[in-house]
Amino acid sequence: MDNNKIKQHISRQFNEEMEDIRNKVLAMGGLVEQQVDLATKAFMGYDMEGAETVVKQDQLVNELEKDIDHECTEIMARRQPAAFDLRMLIATIKIITDLERIGDEAARIARMTMRLEGSDYYQDKYYEIEHLLELVKDMLNGALDAYARTDVEEVIEITAQDTKVDREYTSITRQLITQMMENPRNITRALDMLWTARALERIGDHACNVCEHVIYMVKGKDVRHVSREELEKTVKTAR
Amino acid sequence: MDNNKIKQHISRQFNEEMEDIRNKVLAMGGLVEQQVDLATKAFMGYDMEGAETVVKQDQLVNELEKDIDHECTEIMARRQPAAFDLRMLIATIKIITDLERIGDEAARIARMTMRLEGSDYYQDKYYEIEHLLELVKDMLNGALDAYARTDVEEVIEITAQDTKVDREYTSITRQLITQMMENPRNITRALDMLWTARALERIGDHACNVCEHVIYMVKGKDVRHVSREELEKTVKTAR
Repeated sequence: MDNNKIKQHISRQFNEEMEDIRNKVLAMGGLVEQQVDLATKAFMGYDMEGAETVVKQDQLVNELEKDIDHECTEIMARRQPAAFDLRMLIATIKIITDLERIGDEAARIARMTMRLEGSDYYQDKYYEIEHLLELVKDMLNGALDAYARTDVEEVIEITAQDTKVDREYTSITRQLITQMMENPRNITRALDMLWTARALERIGDHACNVCEHVIYMVKGKDVRHVSREELEKTVKTAR
Repeated sequence: MDNNKIKQHISRQFNEEMEDIRNKVLAMGGLVEQQVDLATKAFMGYDMEGAETVVKQDQLVNELEKDIDHECTEIMARRQPAAFDLRMLIATIKIITDLERIGDEAARIARMTMRLEGSDYYQDKYYEIEHLLELVKDMLNGALDAYARTDVEEVIEITAQDTKVDREYTSITRQLITQMMENPRNITRALDMLWTARALERIGDHACNVCEHVIYMVKGKDVRHVSREELEKTVKTAR
């Protein structure tokens, strides 16, 4: 092969490796989304089988994290990437940390659910928890989509949704405390609901983190802990 | 300058840069330790001033994270380090994420404390919370020490301490639920204590994460989610 062909070959191989990482991150993200959904629904419906599946699958999430992490580090050592490629690898390493933590929160909900086995089925409407679940699933989905398309246009909306999540979470907390005070027999179940709501609120935070990492990847700017205005400005500025 | 001198010069500069990062991580770690201590004590003692300091200083923790993160990425792009140096940079990026999250937990405790202003001083013995605080401070301190000395010998003990933390946390939870059931007027305060205990338990988890990153840095092995035996084997094996 002449020099040019070798270069082309290396560059094609490199692209394939990067594509492989991207696909794995999206697979991990899809799995984590499913875990959050399954865990929360298992909690609401006393579905022990569902909860068990979540706990089992958490191992898979962990393995994916280690696997992707290893691949990113390998490429860094071997290819010494620069500019966008380096940023993508660093952003990916951080994104999978957040995805793994989301998986942890789902597993936490699931393990709590499994402790309910044999206890009285608690009739509750769960409107609020369900709504919270929809909100954070939406955020997570949007964040992964932004990563897949390396496009940050929708990111502002996603992070704005986090304000809604926080508001919803505060309102749920208040209601649950009232329930506990009215009837101490509600305490254990109300606490379980409180932990679940808290886990979902945290998942929303992690989805926001993913968005920030995607902005870093695409725009080359670290927007963690900046004001809303600065975030919007960064997203709208062409790189 | 002849070639050799240039090389020496570059290598000295590189060493200085790495040393600078290490020092900043240790400074960040020291600050975060202090934040955890101050926040928890402010909560126990209704110390509004202390709580306010923690909330203010959280900004500093965040800035240190961004600063160190930026420096690590810069060095990666400019120097294309390999082997131990690359591992140290990657481990550092992860360690400061955990340190920042510990800072967040401290800030959470502090913000909750500030909402107590004007409420009745709640007389409690707080033995358990204080004990939990000592345990996790010890863990964090040990983890930072391992990083400073790039020595993983003590790491097994630190991660073993996490089992104690979890046990303590479970026992606190149980006691608090009993308190709530006995007297619904205790509910709000008991919940605050529950959140504080939970935050401390999470801080212990983050300290364990830091230990795992140090093991990766020193031994080149990813020990997340492995069994206790495998962790010990890795630590004891010479690289």
